[in-house]
Parts: sequence; C-alpha cells; structure tokens
Amino acid sequence: MKVASNLPGEFELIARYFAPLARGFPGAYGLLDDAAVIAPAPGHELVAKTDAIVGGVHFLLDDPPDLIARKALRVNLSDLAAKGAVPRAYLLDIMLPKTLTESWIAGFARGLAQDQDEYRVHLIGGDTDSTPGPVSIAIAAFGEVPTGRMLRRSRARAGDTVFVTGTIGDSALGIEVLRNALPDVGAVAATFLVERYRLPRPRVALGPRLVGLANAAIDISDGLVADLRHVCEVSELAAVVEASRVPLSAAACGVLAARPGYLAAVLTGGDDYEILFTAPPAAAEDLGRLSRTLDVPITPIGRMKTPSSATEDRVTVLDGNGRAMVLGRGGWAHF
Amino acid sequence: MKVASNLPGEFELIARYFAPLARGFPGAYGLLDDAAVIAPAPGHELVAKTDAIVGGVHFLLDDPPDLIARKALRVNLSDLAAKGAVPRAYLLDIMLPKTLTESWIAGFARGLAQDQDEYRVHLIGGDTDSTPGPVSIAIAAFGEVPTGRMLRRSRARAGDTVFVTGTIGDSALGIEVLRNALPDVGAVAATFLVERYRLPRPRVALGPRLVGLANAAIDISDGLVADLRHVCEVSELAAVVEASRVPLSAAACGVLAARPGYLAAVLTGGDDYEILFTAPPAAAEDLGRLSRTLDVPITPIGRMKTPSSATEDRVTVLDGNGRAMVLGRGGWAHF
Repeated sequence: MKVASNLPGEFELIARYFAPLARGFPGAYGLLDDAAVIAPAPGHELVAKTDAIVGGVHFLLDDPPDLIARKALRVNLSDLAAKGAVPRAYLLDIMLPKTLTESWIAGFARGLAQDQDEYRVHLIGGDTDSTPGPVSIAIAAFGEVPTGRMLRRSRARAGDTVFVTGTIGDSALGIEVLRNALPDVGAVAATFLVERYRLPRPRVALGPRLVGLANAAIDISDGLVADLRHVCEVSELAAVVEASRVPLSAAACGVLAARPGYLAAVLTGGDDYEILFTAPPAAAEDLGRLSRTLDVPITPIGRMKTPSSATEDRVTVLDGNGRAMVLGRGGWAHF
Repeated sequence: MKVASNLPGEFELIARYFAPLARGFPGAYGLLDDAAVIAPAPGHELVAKTDAIVGGVHFLLDDPPDLIARKALRVNLSDLAAKGAVPRAYLLDIMLPKTLTESWIAGFARGLAQDQDEYRVHLIGGDTDSTPGPVSIAIAAFGEVPTGRMLRRSRARAGDTVFVTGTIGDSALGIEVLRNALPDVGAVAATFLVERYRLPRPRVALGPRLVGLANAAIDISDGLVADLRHVCEVSELAAVVEASRVPLSAAACGVLAARPGYLAAVLTGGDDYEILFTAPPAAAEDLGRLSRTLDVPITPIGRMKTPSSATEDRVTVLDGNGRAMVLGRGGWAHF
C-alpha cells in the first residue's frame, strides 16, 4: 500500500530494514511473498495476541524509535509469557506520518533486531502504510504452548495463593516522575522508575515454566487490582490481597516512605508487565525453586476465595492493620 | 489500553460489539482471555498475513463503517486466497478518534459479522485504542493450507501460462468515477465500478482449489503489471501479456471504447483483488472445469519466459498489433 512520501518506497524500506529481521524463520520467505507460513511443533498449538501502540497516547512522539519498537513488541511478548507460551514470531503493521525520516525507521528496526535477539522471535510479515496521524504500530505475536495448556484467566480456584513476579508500581511512579510530580526522588531512583515505564521486561523465560504449576495467569497491564479483578470475574471468585506483601523496588519503597498516598498508584497504575498468577499453596516449593533458577522474584500477595456476596468488590486489598482499603482514582481511604 | 473518551469503555465495547464475533471459535474464549489459541488441522499449516487501512489514505472518512470493516477484512482474505489458504480467523486492531460515535462502531461490527458469515472466518482477538489521528484498522488473518503447499510468488516456470480471475481495472476506473473524471459513464456502469473499488470480492472459494494446479500466485493489489512483475522478479523470469486478452467488465469496456487512454489505468491501477497465477498449459482443462464449477472467470492473458536480457523490463505488454506498450504513470505509448 502507499507509503510516506519523503521516505524510500515501501519495497525499498522492506528490503533495507525489515527483511533482515525475517532471517532465520524459513516460513517468512524473506518477506518476499505475500504471507508467511507458521505451524506449531507436534503436540503444541499457537497462541495469538495483538496489541497496538499509538504516538501521543502510549508513547511520546519524541521517544527514541528503538525504544518505541521494543515497547510495541514487548507488550505483546508479555501477554504470551503470561499465557505460558514460548514466543516464536510476529507480524508488524506500521503507519508512518510523512514527517518521519529514514533514520527514524533505521532506529525502529534496530530496536526490533535487538529484542529479536533477546527473545528469540522473528518478524514474519507486515504492512507499511502512510498516515496523516501520529506514528502507530500494531503487532500480532505468536507463541507456542503444549496443546490445551495455555494459561487461562478463568481457571483460578478458591484457596489458590495469588502470586506476582518482580516488583509492582514502578512504571506508574515512572509516569509521575516524567510529570515532575515527584521532584524529591533521587536521580538514580528516578531513572530506574522511568526506565521501567519506557521498557517493559516481559517474563518470557518464566511464563512457559508456569504451565503445570499455575491455575490462572494474566500479565499486569491495566494495574494489579484491575487485572486481578479480571481473573476473579472470569473465574467467578474473589481475592484478598495484603498491600504490605506487594513486592516493591527500592525506588518505589523510597517514594512510598515519603508519600504513602502513592500506594494507590502502585496498586492500580498498570504498565507493570509482570505476571500475576494463582496456584495451589502446595506449589510454593516448586515456585521457590523456579524463582531461584531463573532469578525472577515470585511473591505471594494474597489468596483466592469464594465471593461472600454478589455485590462485594471481587478484590479486597487489606492495609497493614488488616483493614480493607478503598482504592479510588486519586488515592485511597479506609472503610 | 486507552479508548476514545465519548465511547463506552473498552471492556463494554468488546462485550457489546466484538465478543459476539468470536462465537463459534472455541480458541477465542469469547475474547475473555488475553490471547487466543489456534492450531492447523493435521497435515496443515497456518498462513499468516497482515494488512492495515488508514482513514483518508485507503478509504474516505465518510465511507459507511460497515464497508470500511469489510474492506479491511477482505484485503487480507484476498491474500490468503491467492496463497491457496482457507481462511479461519483474524485479529483486529482498531484505532479510534474521539469523534467516533457508538453507532459507527456498531456499523463497523455489523460489517464484520456479515463478512464472517460469507467467508466463514472468526474474530479471535484484538485491541481497541484511542488515536488523535484518523480511524485506522490493522487486521492479521490466518488461513490453512496443506503443509508445504502454500502458493508462492516464486515458483513460476518458463512456459507457464499467466491467468487472471474475474475482470481487471474496474477498481481503478471506480476511483476515476469518484474523482468525476468519467462524467459520461452511465449510472449503472458508474455504480458497478465504484462498488468494485469500495468492496473487493476476494476469491476465497477458488484460491485453495488452485493448490496443485498453479505454480505461482499473487493477489492483484498493486496493479496487474506490478504484481506480475513481483512474480517475475522472485521467480527470476519474464512475462509477456497480450493487452487484448485481459478480461474486462462491460463497464470497463464501455470506458475504454470512448477513452482508450484509460487502458494504462486498467493494467496498472491496482485494488483488483483478483488472483493472478501461472500454471502449465496442460492445466487449462482442469482450470476450465474449476472455472465453471465455481462460476469464476479464469482467463489466460500471457506466458512466462526466460528473461532475454538483464536490463529488459520483466513484464512486456503487447497491444492488439503485437507491439510492446510503454505503461507510464499518466498513460502509455508505443516504443
């Protein structure tokens, strides 16, 4: 289709920047055909996921193009990981405003190349289009799971422990740093928090290892409380979380020590791209071993239970004194 | 992710308009999970293709939303058909400006529902985002072919006959009608040509039947000459086409009778979404039977040959007197 006018033609762009990203995946045919071929290994099926990011909405227009590319890919890989899938390939639609330069494209492709190496995934097809709007990127990613074993939101059981990987809330606080809302945060902590927002680290190695251990899983993109609520809703259960057990980075601890009101942002802010999952308490030992093997923190933060009433909020967060917190938009309060 | 502000929330939109489109495909989990599961039937593999369309670039912003949806889906189904694949499922990224109304979304979803019925394909996942730009739609579509049998651009052989389905050039002339460049075309012909531009009819039933008959295939989106050139390049061959054999609709014949200069638009205009394929001359009888069975015109228009020199244009179009035509941007001339 049509491409932005101050750039090389579409075929030239593909040959120069995108075809090299298809090397090593035979079914991509070097992006020289109209479609790619992909088949799961015997006994496996494909997990398919798409997520788009839009300039000015999900990233800043002057963000470095390699970071934009990596974020676009990683938000998809995070979903695959939370579903227990090993990533294999992706399709890329990129919509380019006429103001973009070829060096922007080069940087964008460089970011993809870097992450392809890191996550062992290949570009297998795509479309490059012109847009009068901001640069927009849609990625459809494919992973592989043993047949019938994709980790679901809906399979949590009453009595399961709720676990999260990594630390929670860094990305939400990173946005606050970018907004200059946290002027007293030190430079090292500020950089760490902003980095966590700019470049998610999807749990690609861990996710597939949760198959057989976790009952339900989801990646945390909407926020810890909202994503746990998604699990509760489709599993027809409720959950209780102890706020004091939610794992925090040193930087986030520092912010909360000075400004405890930011706890709500931590618990609801989103963009964590960690995995939240539920597993029977008996899985704790296996999970501890897995955590040490992969060097990924896995922390129990609560438990799944039968809902006590139809009107109850499915997710209850308890403060340090065991009282239910009300998490509103601007902060939180006790009942 | 974030959604346009004057619309219902993302989850509401999904539940109301998109989840119904996932019914009948178990691996889509009613769009209630983060990803879908898809596996080819035994002995088959998946063919994956993505194509995006952007408001103001590929369609007019006041085009009816159901037609926009159907065009977005059909341009992808056309590629699957040309690769010999039976369509099965698709992922949808839709980027919505804040000015869009809920009735626009309803119309868009209605268009998808209509085409899902027609082409037996299901929505299995997607992402809805807000954009400050025009409405933009990226679709990734999946079909199924017997393993190793995807129709390729690169497998044409010297001596193959070049065939096309349907009629060529209607869409290019439809654009001219919309530009008021063809004021003397009658109302019936004008409507036919515009309709061919607005709503492609991908050759979904025919495509998979070409597996085993065709050596190479491509769908005609860039234009007959350009797409045949793609086949020539990757097959390392040349082609000769007789312009007088290129199948035309009655409406296109009428235009060319009055304005022969539009032949170049017909041959190079694109958006035909017919299949161009090459097959050994011996396949003609089987192809004739297939054409009658499916009621799809299949017309021989030329042949593949070894390139006579490295500098020669790979595609030669002969006029009615056997002279090579030069097809430029604004028209054509004889050597």
